[in-house]
Amino acid sequence: MKKELVFGHKNPDTDAVVAAIAYSYFMNQKGIDTEPVALGNPNEETKYVFNHFNYDFPRVITSADTDKVMLVDHNESQQSVDNISDVEVTHVVDHHRIANFETSNPLFYHAEPLGCTSTIIWKLFNQEKIEIPAQIASLMMSAIISDTLLLKSPTTTDQDKAALESLSRTAGVDYETYGLDMLKAGTNLDSKSAKELVEMDAKTFDMNGKKVRIDQVNTVDLDDTLKRQSEFEEAIKNEMNVENEDLFILLITNILTSDTKAIVLGNDSVLSVFELTFNTKIENNIAYLPGVVSRKKQVVPQLNENF
Amino acid sequence: MKKELVFGHKNPDTDAVVAAIAYSYFMNQKGIDTEPVALGNPNEETKYVFNHFNYDFPRVITSADTDKVMLVDHNESQQSVDNISDVEVTHVVDHHRIANFETSNPLFYHAEPLGCTSTIIWKLFNQEKIEIPAQIASLMMSAIISDTLLLKSPTTTDQDKAALESLSRTAGVDYETYGLDMLKAGTNLDSKSAKELVEMDAKTFDMNGKKVRIDQVNTVDLDDTLKRQSEFEEAIKNEMNVENEDLFILLITNILTSDTKAIVLGNDSVLSVFELTFNTKIENNIAYLPGVVSRKKQVVPQLNENF
Repeated sequence: MKKELVFGHKNPDTDAVVAAIAYSYFMNQKGIDTEPVALGNPNEETKYVFNHFNYDFPRVITSADTDKVMLVDHNESQQSVDNISDVEVTHVVDHHRIANFETSNPLFYHAEPLGCTSTIIWKLFNQEKIEIPAQIASLMMSAIISDTLLLKSPTTTDQDKAALESLSRTAGVDYETYGLDMLKAGTNLDSKSAKELVEMDAKTFDMNGKKVRIDQVNTVDLDDTLKRQSEFEEAIKNEMNVENEDLFILLITNILTSDTKAIVLGNDSVLSVFELTFNTKIENNIAYLPGVVSRKKQVVPQLNENF
Repeated sequence: MKKELVFGHKNPDTDAVVAAIAYSYFMNQKGIDTEPVALGNPNEETKYVFNHFNYDFPRVITSADTDKVMLVDHNESQQSVDNISDVEVTHVVDHHRIANFETSNPLFYHAEPLGCTSTIIWKLFNQEKIEIPAQIASLMMSAIISDTLLLKSPTTTDQDKAALESLSRTAGVDYETYGLDMLKAGTNLDSKSAKELVEMDAKTFDMNGKKVRIDQVNTVDLDDTLKRQSEFEEAIKNEMNVENEDLFILLITNILTSDTKAIVLGNDSVLSVFELTFNTKIENNIAYLPGVVSRKKQVVPQLNENF
């Protein structure tokens, strides 16, 4: 029998790939034969993680070639494999809202409002008393650092902190020093085209019939990154055309100061929903969102409520 | 602050009410103040359970009067409180497919493909090392007997069996003897009008745009129950008219022999989907479904695939 596939969302970030690896290992220990795969190539940060711990990046797929699959770090169908409606989802482990997700059969679904999917998987390992190998612990530690911006994001919970501390002990790594290096590696934007940057951490949402795209790039200097604004806007307009998107938000987030400037494009009516939602003015296509670092907690639900 | 409400589905069966009581108790022990409620009056079986163990049936509501709620034993919005779209769902514990369910925020969602929600809640008590009081154990035991037809339904798993055995020890009750009495009490159909029987365990599903209603009554004698066929059909036609349902299936299930005869009404096109799905002929509005006892495992997914 073919191994059941385990994967995170499209445009994978560190947690999407690592959670698939960790959950697949967990399932294999429980006697269910699985293979972790990724729905895209690694971003700069994820490359740094896999190089640093000398771990092979999983096989990249766009369509599942098995009948059954397990999802981690996502559930919305537009963020999943292209043929998600043709396969059976048997397991989900996630920390996002639930939407555009439907099954014909009962399934295993474990979601918690924690900062990182890898934290939930760490809890599952503990519950079932399965040991986490040091190398996988290093990856899970990296995923938590990535999703919580070294425990500074408002999505961070006490459980994420406990998981990070426990995993760094297992891995034998000082997470403070390593974490800062890892996050900085992820902000190495100069080598990328505007198109690549925009697509690097892209998510699309259906909000009351409107197609809303919210991408995010991290930086350590907002103004330096915004020197490329016109390049970004060209890439965004092109994407909106091809994908028929109604509203496009590119969050440019300073991970050191926890602030965001967003490039926001769309027609007047969707722009006014954005302005209303964040009580701000878009000037020269840019909105300043002080204190905003989390798309999931500080952008998606607020916008969704107003559409 | 108002207590957060915990409830199971409309037309509650034993598990819907008991899971709400057990999960509410669990949450209260964890320091989150909740109140269990029911979305309807008890059926004959559930009445027997609450009388037998001298436990007060919870308050009955149709709309939630709190901002936040927890769902047990269901997730589909049409099976929930009338104002489900206006409240925030913070927790779900369930053992059904996921459909017509959407949130704006991340939440706690724990589903497993087990026979009974109360089995999942039993696992949660164990994980968190919270003791189950004998009276609540009696109720949870009853819920498992009800959902698994005393471990005979194909939905039954090893974990349901383990939970039932453990809970019956905590409750100090011989589940075999008690269980048969309880199931028989639930088949006391004579005192009910056809309308009451049809509505007793009713569930509505959206299947590719068709409104499909699947109700179930348990009996110990199929032919005896079917003496009232014309009465049932009149009640069904009336319901279909009022609720605009495309297909109505009344499963009449013999819990001793594990067989079902279904009264099936709808237009030719939906009836042919039914016949195709179950490879059977509907004669005089009746289809014989040998070995079928579980709506969830043997009826809903199969029909859903063919619509």
